[in-house]
Amino acid sequence: MFSSRSRYLVFFQYFGTKYSGVMETSNDQSVVGVQNYLERAAQNLKPIVPIKFCISSRTDTGVHALCNSAHLDIQREPGKPAFQEKQLIHCLNKHLKSEPIRILKAHRVTDGFHARFSALSRTYVYRLLTGCAHPSEIPVFERDLCWAPPGHFNSLNVPAMQEAAQFLLGTHDFSTFRSLNSKTPFQPPVRTLLQADIQPSPGFLSHHYEHRKLEFWEVKFRSRSFLYRQVRRMVGALVAVGQGKLTPQDIKELLEIKDSQAFPSYAMAPPSGLFLKAVEY
Amino acid sequence: MFSSRSRYLVFFQYFGTKYSGVMETSNDQSVVGVQNYLERAAQNLKPIVPIKFCISSRTDTGVHALCNSAHLDIQREPGKPAFQEKQLIHCLNKHLKSEPIRILKAHRVTDGFHARFSALSRTYVYRLLTGCAHPSEIPVFERDLCWAPPGHFNSLNVPAMQEAAQFLLGTHDFSTFRSLNSKTPFQPPVRTLLQADIQPSPGFLSHHYEHRKLEFWEVKFRSRSFLYRQVRRMVGALVAVGQGKLTPQDIKELLEIKDSQAFPSYAMAPPSGLFLKAVEY
Repeated sequence: MFSSRSRYLVFFQYFGTKYSGVMETSNDQSVVGVQNYLERAAQNLKPIVPIKFCISSRTDTGVHALCNSAHLDIQREPGKPAFQEKQLIHCLNKHLKSEPIRILKAHRVTDGFHARFSALSRTYVYRLLTGCAHPSEIPVFERDLCWAPPGHFNSLNVPAMQEAAQFLLGTHDFSTFRSLNSKTPFQPPVRTLLQADIQPSPGFLSHHYEHRKLEFWEVKFRSRSFLYRQVRRMVGALVAVGQGKLTPQDIKELLEIKDSQAFPSYAMAPPSGLFLKAVEY
Repeated sequence: MFSSRSRYLVFFQYFGTKYSGVMETSNDQSVVGVQNYLERAAQNLKPIVPIKFCISSRTDTGVHALCNSAHLDIQREPGKPAFQEKQLIHCLNKHLKSEPIRILKAHRVTDGFHARFSALSRTYVYRLLTGCAHPSEIPVFERDLCWAPPGHFNSLNVPAMQEAAQFLLGTHDFSTFRSLNSKTPFQPPVRTLLQADIQPSPGFLSHHYEHRKLEFWEVKFRSRSFLYRQVRRMVGALVAVGQGKLTPQDIKELLEIKDSQAFPSYAMAPPSGLFLKAVEY
């Protein structure tokens, strides 16, 4: 009797502050990747070949996911049936225990399906908080889950940010808006931004904060794929526009320069406010 | 020159999961009280008499505060002026550093003011989550911040809970709805419940959870003061009504029994969903 292999697409959520990012790291580091925990939990499925998660969308240290995705192959002993989707979710979550990582959904897919290459688009949400004169004024329930841009500016010029975001929409060479690392120099820098919205957003229990003038905003971007740190650079540049440090026209000019070094070094947004919202197939 | 003493009322917020409760504990325990951190931070004000916080409202291990309050006296060296309110907030928050405790407001008050005895009422909010078949389905961003009542019931009969809550409103002997500890036997059990509401509530980023049927509810209670664990017992009993384990009439009968032992032992709600929302003066 042959042992058969089954491929699954799983969707999962995590609180990124605890992890070195989503991707696997060597297990001897003090802080490891979300993937390390996923694969450790998957060993409890007793596969005959170690299970690898092929993750659709990289996220950095401190970046969160409302929903990321990955595919994995499970090869069981001959004669054992393929796991049912609910069984798989339950077993993985049981072994993830108290880690702030949670499997949301699982779907059996064909062998040709690839979590990364089959994805049609990714949506990111970045949470901003205004009304804080100092980071210590961030509500304790929102720490690590938003960015309160520093400075004397307690509000942002949102219409200017919305005007600037229009320059980012569409197909561009985003070279200025990527960070370089050893893996990126040969990656093509042209991307198509399908959505760039800035909307007011609720905060956690903010309907109970009657005494404060805190305002939450969400910047949402959708694209087939993004360059390394592109979202954090785009958000940081839009915030600089909202603070009056850059003009909307400067965003257009930064795009046209096509040079990572031209990006104002002060402007990259921190990881704490960034959430991968969804991977669309 | 005389050294003068100034009294302040401060309002503060905390994420209760990390602490043994709000009240001071001996410093050699592995988990100590919020008050320990407040008093440690206050030593940086260099008072000539150690600063004690007189906390208005006790909260247990794992219970959160959107806003609790305390008064404190600061006696400075002769000739030094009293701290300004903003200075006090800034200095305390600076020394609380990364602790999830934050001073929200400070007001200079008269010597006769007492944070606990001058309070007119307290308001608590309890967050419930329905739609989870298992605690592992709680969104990772909501862990320790709500209660997903267990069982096969994925929803609660809210109209029945609202009907039951009406029996709790007003002045009653709440003996059945308190837990006993060494300090409580001589505390009068009559309290006047001014408000008992059950309302739908937003979850953290729940406008982005398109694939789930999660629903958040808030139970809100206001009274001049509460008995030991009264809110958690009242919420637990209302949830039992929502699940069909008790009827609204049972709540009325439990009140009339006036016996702590008569309370169904399964029904006390856990601390994770409980927030002290406000102390009113």
